[in-house]
Amino acid sequence: MRQAVHELAIDSPGQGLHEFTPAVRRWVSESGIATGLLTLFVRHTSCSLLIQENAAPAARRDLERWIAQIAPERGSYEHDDEGPDDMPAHLRAAVTATSLSIPVVDGVPVLGTWQGVFLFEHRHSPHRRRVALHLIGE
Amino acid sequence: MRQAVHELAIDSPGQGLHEFTPAVRRWVSESGIATGLLTLFVRHTSCSLLIQENAAPAARRDLERWIAQIAPERGSYEHDDEGPDDMPAHLRAAVTATSLSIPVVDGVPVLGTWQGVFLFEHRHSPHRRRVALHLIGE
Amino acid sequence: MRQAVHELAIDSPGQGLHEFTPAVRRWVSESGIATGLLTLFVRHTSCSLLIQENAAPAARRDLERWIAQIAPERGSYEHDDEGPDDMPAHLRAAVTATSLSIPVVDGVPVLGTWQGVFLFEHRHSPHRRRVALHLIGE
Repeated sequence: MRQAVHELAIDSPGQGLHEFTPAVRRWVSESGIATGLLTLFVRHTSCSLLIQENAAPAARRDLERWIAQIAPERGSYEHDDEGPDDMPAHLRAAVTATSLSIPVVDGVPVLGTWQGVFLFEHRHSPHRRRVALHLIGE
Repeated sequence: MRQAVHELAIDSPGQGLHEFTPAVRRWVSESGIATGLLTLFVRHTSCSLLIQENAAPAARRDLERWIAQIAPERGSYEHDDEGPDDMPAHLRAAVTATSLSIPVVDGVPVLGTWQGVFLFEHRHSPHRRRVALHLIGE
Repeated sequence: MRQAVHELAIDSPGQGLHEFTPAVRRWVSESGIATGLLTLFVRHTSCSLLIQENAAPAARRDLERWIAQIAPERGSYEHDDEGPDDMPAHLRAAVTATSLSIPVVDGVPVLGTWQGVFLFEHRHSPHRRRVALHLIGE
């Protein structure tokens, strides 16, 4: 049994769902681990991780609009030092994923046909986001 | 240290919370791994996983009604090719779990007394759902 | 490769976000495992886990107020045997985390600068809460 660790840097251009499945698959493949457990962990509290529909851009836009409704930027928040998109970013991150674990079989994460791995950016301005990857197996 | 992988097929009869704790316990027990980490991963984006109250059916119904309110089928969605229950299914999946990790001690997942593992089906029609299981330990 | 398991008891004084990052860091450090994967699992369905902003108490209060709005105690719930804070507790737990996995590097969980690990207590009265910890690595 062995393990590999890595940190992906993802340059998010601004609010929305940004897919990075190919970078994840590539790293898993390069690790040489055929069977195991892959974990992704986002090191921020104003963006999050999400596994979602990878084929329909309209589904992505609906998801972005919906989360903007349930945690709106025009809310009245006590914490607003960093601008109107800061506190809603924490709220949206709280109800989506900070960590995700995906079994790996035959050198590939067992994502379903329509599943992609996304960084869900909740801030408007571009950010360099760091996602820690861990893989254990053999 | 060793690991086991498996895929459970769950026939969901339609929308709602469907418990499958016994199948999970059985597989963990058969693996012969006494101490370790169990991971469940659902390979779909229109159903999800949830650990919830396993004793009160009323709590289950309240949860189903509440999620139907916050991500309603009568919303106005851009993505509606597959019917009115498709886009809300993605929204409901986004705020519940795609993966769950549970430590295993003495051959049993350390679920609390009132915790059950559920498939949360968000579509109306019956579906065969696939949940990948991974267990590492010794 | 080796593993360690533990159960943290957390005395929650009542509703809200209670940080316990120091106890987690201490246990990881004492395990002697330098590189690995840490998993936290909360053994209850009326409290949950959350990784959030650890520096701004105002952000914490905004988060508590927001979740109280989307899953209100004055809702009309079928399941109310245990009081008006019971069913909303399950709802709030359903959309936050039951399990969290964090890679460990150099003997430390790779939390970002502003990330803290919190018990999110959804009941009003004090409770002793149990969080299972699992660490695998070397």
